[in-house]
This record gives sequence, C-alpha cells and structure tokens, in this order.
Amino acid sequence: METTPGLCTNPDAVTQGYIFNHTMLRVRDPKVSLDFYSRVLGMKLLRKVDFNEWKFSLYFLAMQKEETIGSDEQKTKYTAGLSGVLELTHNHGTEENPETPYHNGNTEPRGFGHICFSVPDIVAACARFESLGVPFQKRLGEGGMKNIAFIKDPDNYWVEIIEA
Amino acid sequence: METTPGLCTNPDAVTQGYIFNHTMLRVRDPKVSLDFYSRVLGMKLLRKVDFNEWKFSLYFLAMQKEETIGSDEQKTKYTAGLSGVLELTHNHGTEENPETPYHNGNTEPRGFGHICFSVPDIVAACARFESLGVPFQKRLGEGGMKNIAFIKDPDNYWVEIIEA
Repeated sequence: METTPGLCTNPDAVTQGYIFNHTMLRVRDPKVSLDFYSRVLGMKLLRKVDFNEWKFSLYFLAMQKEETIGSDEQKTKYTAGLSGVLELTHNHGTEENPETPYHNGNTEPRGFGHICFSVPDIVAACARFESLGVPFQKRLGEGGMKNIAFIKDPDNYWVEIIEA
Repeated sequence: METTPGLCTNPDAVTQGYIFNHTMLRVRDPKVSLDFYSRVLGMKLLRKVDFNEWKFSLYFLAMQKEETIGSDEQKTKYTAGLSGVLELTHNHGTEENPETPYHNGNTEPRGFGHICFSVPDIVAACARFESLGVPFQKRLGEGGMKNIAFIKDPDNYWVEIIEA
C-alpha cells in the first residue's frame, strides 16, 4: 500500500494480537431481528446474555459453521476470539413499540452508515431477498453504483450486499 | 444453543456462503482516523478508493498480517472476501471542521452503539492507550461492568475493549 497521510505502516507489535471482534446495534425486538439475521442472512447465535437488573439482553451472532457448545464461560471466550461478530442489544420493553425507536445513521444526525455482507452471487442473493419479502433501500442497477444493493433490517439499518 | 424466539437454526444452505464483511462509519478527517486505527489499534489499510465526482473517499481496514498487493481489482476482491473489515467514509471537506459533524449513536437518537476489539491482556492494552493519550469513555473498574473499557476514536465513536 502506498503512503497515505496519517497511516502508520509499522504499528507496535502488541497490536497484532488485537482482534476487531464486533459491531453493536440496538434492536427493537430480538424475535424479528434474530429471524432476519439467522433465516435471511444465515448467522448463528453464539451467545445470549441477559442483564435483567439493568433490563437489557445481548445477542452475539456470526457466520460460523457450527453452534457454540459448552458453558457460558466457554461461549464467552469463544465469541471474544472471533472477528465478524454482530452484537444486538435489546433494551427490554422496546418490542412493545410498533416502530423502532432507533436511528439508522443515514439521515441527520449521520454517523454509522451500514453493515455489509459479501455473497458469492449477488444476482441470486438479491432475487432470494426479493422472494423473502426483504425491503430494499437500493436495488441492483439503481443509483450511481449499479453492482451493489442495500437491504434493510427490521430496524431500518442498512445492510449492503456486494459480490465477493 | 437452546431455542430462542425468532431464531432459525437451519437456514437455507446458500446463506452459508455469505460473509459478514464490514461495518461503515463516517469520519471527519481520514488523517486522524487512519492514525488511530493503524497506530493505536494496529489495523492495515487494505484498500482506498476515491469517488472524486461524488466528493467522497472510502478506506477499508482490517487486522491483517500483510499489506494487500496487486491491482485495484485484486485488492477489491481480496477485501470483499474477508470478515472483520472496517470501512471509513470521508466526505471531502469535513476535515476543515474543527469538530466532527458525526453522531456516535449513544445519545438520542440512538442506534449504532460501538465497535469492539478483543485483546490478549486488557490491563496492558488499557495502560498502553493511556500512555498514548487515547481518551476513555469508561475505564476498567468503572461502572457496572468492571472488566471492560471503552475508548473513543477521533469522531467520538465508542470502541469497546474486552479480553479475549
């Protein structure tokens, strides 16, 4: 990679044991979000943890081939060692709202933009999402970038679809 | 994993070729964000792409051992096949603002919460962040969860630190 302003190309060796582990999104109703991320996108639930005294629960998902097994401690350790984990936070009671109380970051105030899945065959994947009734933010062939699509998760977070 | 409402434990086989590829955050100034993610957290820049006609640039980073090499097409294909990629979007001109125009999702309107890095030794990692002058949202030992920390990136996005 050529020189880029600000980029450190020789970081401290200790950083090379760090793992970009997860991204956290708040969700209105874990039932519908788990359905979306497991049935539509194929993610496995690796770990669920309830903090009942603080009225929230966390769901950790990833594209793993196998379910996690073992004790809560083993699942926690396994999940922390992965990259590409999605953490969904459910503040208890939000599922009673008919609409999500959450903001997807793509209108003001902006910030977070989207998560992205790459797929082996984007035409097939988008046809499958259509057949499943998944809403699109942008279909293939629309807009300035014809070869990518954006679907929307149950809280209207944008999920980009690209071809690997 | 026990049954969880909404969870599909036997998703369509085609989904098992999908990859949770990246998370996108908008940043004010790529120079300071690249410094943070490369020098402080050790990420490599895999791909940079400029859309000058639309006045934005994208930077794709990941915890990879090696730099990407080859043509833009090869870098694009390589990056799309990974998990755990961070995409930083720079809308040209925002670096002239003294403060970030972006919202980190943790005050109203909430939504996205944080990204997270797991580290081999959290006490050592947090001491290193302190020595580098990285601002903390929550130090080890503070708050309800004593064994995790949150640092802040240059746009005030929260970066959770956990021990793997």
